[in-house]
Amino acid sequence: MTDMSFTVLSRAGAARTGSLRLAHGAVETPAFMPVGTAGTVKAMLPQSVEATGARIVLGNTYHLMLRPGAERVAALGGLHRFMNWPHPILTDSGGYQVMSLARLREITEAGVAFRSHLDGSRHLLTPERSVEIQHLLDADITMALDECTPFPATEEVAARSMALSMRWAERSRAAFRRRPGYAVFGIVQGGVYPELRQASAAALTRIGFDGYAIGGLAVGEGQAVMFRVLEETVPALPEDRPRYLMGVGKPADIVGAVARGVDLFDCVLPTRSGRTAQAFTRRGTVNLRNARHAEDPAPLDPECGCPACTGHSRAYLHHLCKAGEILASMLLTWHNLQYYADLMTALRRAIAAGRLAEFIAAFAAAQNGAERRVA
Amino acid sequence: MTDMSFTVLSRAGAARTGSLRLAHGAVETPAFMPVGTAGTVKAMLPQSVEATGARIVLGNTYHLMLRPGAERVAALGGLHRFMNWPHPILTDSGGYQVMSLARLREITEAGVAFRSHLDGSRHLLTPERSVEIQHLLDADITMALDECTPFPATEEVAARSMALSMRWAERSRAAFRRRPGYAVFGIVQGGVYPELRQASAAALTRIGFDGYAIGGLAVGEGQAVMFRVLEETVPALPEDRPRYLMGVGKPADIVGAVARGVDLFDCVLPTRSGRTAQAFTRRGTVNLRNARHAEDPAPLDPECGCPACTGHSRAYLHHLCKAGEILASMLLTWHNLQYYADLMTALRRAIAAGRLAEFIAAFAAAQNGAERRVA
Repeated sequence: MTDMSFTVLSRAGAARTGSLRLAHGAVETPAFMPVGTAGTVKAMLPQSVEATGARIVLGNTYHLMLRPGAERVAALGGLHRFMNWPHPILTDSGGYQVMSLARLREITEAGVAFRSHLDGSRHLLTPERSVEIQHLLDADITMALDECTPFPATEEVAARSMALSMRWAERSRAAFRRRPGYAVFGIVQGGVYPELRQASAAALTRIGFDGYAIGGLAVGEGQAVMFRVLEETVPALPEDRPRYLMGVGKPADIVGAVARGVDLFDCVLPTRSGRTAQAFTRRGTVNLRNARHAEDPAPLDPECGCPACTGHSRAYLHHLCKAGEILASMLLTWHNLQYYADLMTALRRAIAAGRLAEFIAAFAAAQNGAERRVA
Repeated sequence: MTDMSFTVLSRAGAARTGSLRLAHGAVETPAFMPVGTAGTVKAMLPQSVEATGARIVLGNTYHLMLRPGAERVAALGGLHRFMNWPHPILTDSGGYQVMSLARLREITEAGVAFRSHLDGSRHLLTPERSVEIQHLLDADITMALDECTPFPATEEVAARSMALSMRWAERSRAAFRRRPGYAVFGIVQGGVYPELRQASAAALTRIGFDGYAIGGLAVGEGQAVMFRVLEETVPALPEDRPRYLMGVGKPADIVGAVARGVDLFDCVLPTRSGRTAQAFTRRGTVNLRNARHAEDPAPLDPECGCPACTGHSRAYLHHLCKAGEILASMLLTWHNLQYYADLMTALRRAIAAGRLAEFIAAFAAAQNGAERRVA
């Protein structure tokens, strides 16, 4: 195996399908990465994640560095072996979670100093340490450390933050140790400001990464602004490299972002929703705690092949949610990940068949259809 | 299909192997029944319960009558379909849970009046209503309503309680509607008093049941007393009918009870322990929260074929337990049910091969061996 390879296979407007080859296997894009925060996609056996069709998951550097510790995971053979996931893994840099979860955070040029939310222990996350941790975890894709610019931010604040992220990107790139099949991605920042986004994309391209992420979105700016930023940013990125929209999103966000040229996604939405009785279906979202499901013998989604839909009624799923049973989280997480995996498969097929516009129209019509009116 | 059939296939002293044929399939005995309280064996997909080798589960009448309600389960096609478990189900009578969970309980000759622990609603559980609920649930094996005699109890109290249970047993038997493959079991009570146990067994045999349960044990009397009561009770039960020791127990309890002629068991221990980081292994019990596992790359039990043991290290399981991950409950519940299913398979093989005494000696030696010393 040589360096990570990415081959664009077909196009439909800005959208494309591709094959991303990494140390632990190939990923067909556009792809959704289930989030495996602490070495587990919550409420799922790894075999079940695989059964949905997912072929890459995301691991969180912040969580894993604190517990069980990156050196311990390395001593146990790396994150793939630790969590029994033989396919590719992308790890984030830890920066985002430090800012949202850790205590007494302090950002300096060196990096982010913070105290653990678990035990109060002190840590310093630098670009070099973040990359080292991701090496210890044996991530197929390492993410550069960045600062996720808050929203809203003035142009001046966004510019300063983006410039820091670019200096950190350069240090992250320098710290990354090249090995066949392993990749490092830079992250475009710049808030909602087109010139900043383009300057950030240009800076990262100059440094040279295996792939390019778009960060700092899905933080409250709304779908219209997010789509606009994508339209202004994606054309500034190398055509032959994968593009990853971080932390996105709802099914409609993903469909719109794929149409705008994004290849990779991650989001806690399908897994977190699965633990709070929320299900995504081909006819919109469903709250299974709603009493209207109590006597409904129909499956959650008759077109879905997951165990929740093939084995059980809405009435049963409603019962499990009301009773607070672990199986509710298990079945609905599986269903939601199956829905996301099926959505990505459908998008890939539509792009390859030159029918993406028709797919998007049918998707929007179905999502606004019967289920939502009565939910 | 005619009435339930039970065929004794081999014997070793008081122990025996058998085949129990019920409406939803056959069960090889001795068998352990995982507990599926509220229509789910907690933290397990039904397919995973099946994969352990279990072929009968227990459902709790008390929980199901309150939520989602027996009539609702019936309208949805019965408990097998509701929980997607195609194999046999035994339901308890609800009496035990009423006494341990419900509020404002009052026992009269008619039955038990109580208020739901969920919403305070009033209910009256009579022998007739208990049997009706179990019919609505479509249980393969219906249990007669009884009063589980408290421990300790004077002989006078135990006698009065047992006499009430025998009158309720007669009413339960009369209310039971015979259908091919469906069975009703009576429950021997009488506390720790041999004469009461034998009188209870005689009373039930006179009424005539498809199988006989031994109730009121594993309530604090200790293993030695429990074994003595079994030795005094089992010989008083019909040789050609299955015997079911309710709510038992630890692996060593089960081994000892099988040696004393018991065919069926149920207990929350493997499932509940699986949710509290306790694992049963061929070398004793293991607490996976113990720091000694933090860096241990070895499997929990190298002889076990469950996903926890074939896919993961003790270090990973320890990590999941410390992090409070749902997957810890999922993997350890599966492991514990696999351990119990494997134990029953080993017991059946040892009895059939005429090597039960050797099996028991090896079992006791292994359980007292290395793991327990360092746990």
